[in-house]
Amino acid sequence: MSGNQITISAFEWVPEFAKGQVRDLVVRWALEELGLPYQTYLLNAATARDASYIAWQPFDQVPAYRDGEVEIFESGAILLYLAEKHSKLLPSDAAGKARAMSWLFATLNSVEPALRPIALYPLFHGDKDWSAPAVASLMPLAEGRLKRVADALGNKDWIATEFSVADILLIFVLRSFGGEMINDHPNLLAYRARGLARPAFKRALQAQLDDLTGSPV
Amino acid sequence: MSGNQITISAFEWVPEFAKGQVRDLVVRWALEELGLPYQTYLLNAATARDASYIAWQPFDQVPAYRDGEVEIFESGAILLYLAEKHSKLLPSDAAGKARAMSWLFATLNSVEPALRPIALYPLFHGDKDWSAPAVASLMPLAEGRLKRVADALGNKDWIATEFSVADILLIFVLRSFGGEMINDHPNLLAYRARGLARPAFKRALQAQLDDLTGSPV
Repeated sequence: MSGNQITISAFEWVPEFAKGQVRDLVVRWALEELGLPYQTYLLNAATARDASYIAWQPFDQVPAYRDGEVEIFESGAILLYLAEKHSKLLPSDAAGKARAMSWLFATLNSVEPALRPIALYPLFHGDKDWSAPAVASLMPLAEGRLKRVADALGNKDWIATEFSVADILLIFVLRSFGGEMINDHPNLLAYRARGLARPAFKRALQAQLDDLTGSPV
Repeated sequence: MSGNQITISAFEWVPEFAKGQVRDLVVRWALEELGLPYQTYLLNAATARDASYIAWQPFDQVPAYRDGEVEIFESGAILLYLAEKHSKLLPSDAAGKARAMSWLFATLNSVEPALRPIALYPLFHGDKDWSAPAVASLMPLAEGRLKRVADALGNKDWIATEFSVADILLIFVLRSFGGEMINDHPNLLAYRARGLARPAFKRALQAQLDDLTGSPV
């Protein structure tokens, strides 16, 4: 194992609904786009991690990343680190890079948080009386944010001036949390399909699924 | 107005609960730490913005940033842009910078989303039957995440190896969304107080309040 060996954390077992959805997918996707080999440190979603993993990823989440130089966690931070380190997956001009960084953060902080309750409350709190009315109340914000994304994308292929880490995250979020709302926006449907058709995405998805060799313990 | 003039968007009027809470505060704080003068482009929270503002900030939010070179939106993206451009407010070694970037993203994506419903559902949905039980159901996650932040901070002054943009965001989030939960963690209380005592924060807060010269229209 060389000093520059890349290791990311991932799961060896997750419940059915999470297969192909865990966030190591976006890091794997970026690594495939960059042509960088990596190894995985596999955890089990059903068991608690030990203190050494918490020192690497304080919230006991996946993914965390390390190479010969740094340890880093949070998928957005890892993507930005990789793009800057390898001078790829981000526009090289200042204005284009600023737009990609804006959308990287907007995806995580203004798009996903609006969509997430719509997708997750039924999954995790569907048995509670408050879930359905909460989702109904939060729907206008979610639909409004999705419309702004559709307007900003327009008829462009990618959200910044070229394919970037912002697209990796935005397409991941549309895939995981877009639900039926996305069907109102043909350009977002085409954008998502364009991203998911990339060979690097397909390899990343297969690699995540291939690592699911564990049992729930 | 020179080509390098910095402009950020902010509000000339917000409802009472939002005074001193709007996110241009973190960008003002960073600019004060960097000693960079800026001007504000003032909006009114009660009125809809026009297409030119949507082209700058697609979600009609505050803040957006421009200088002679770039336009950028999302407070996290603006902070990271400023830190990288001016080689300040981020550790200069790769490992320290990675830790600060991890926490910048973790604050926005793993801490704030867990705390936010606890703070905001009572404010925006308190009149609905689902609000209180939703908050009760979501409380364990919020308390758990806050405990992980407290553990990671330990007895250090700042969350990475030195004061950084990650502290600006984390202290902002603890101040706005920490509520009574933070009282369980003396080190987080001291950390928040340490940040809010910085002269740059005080100047930033005063500047945001001073700009509130408008009426709700």
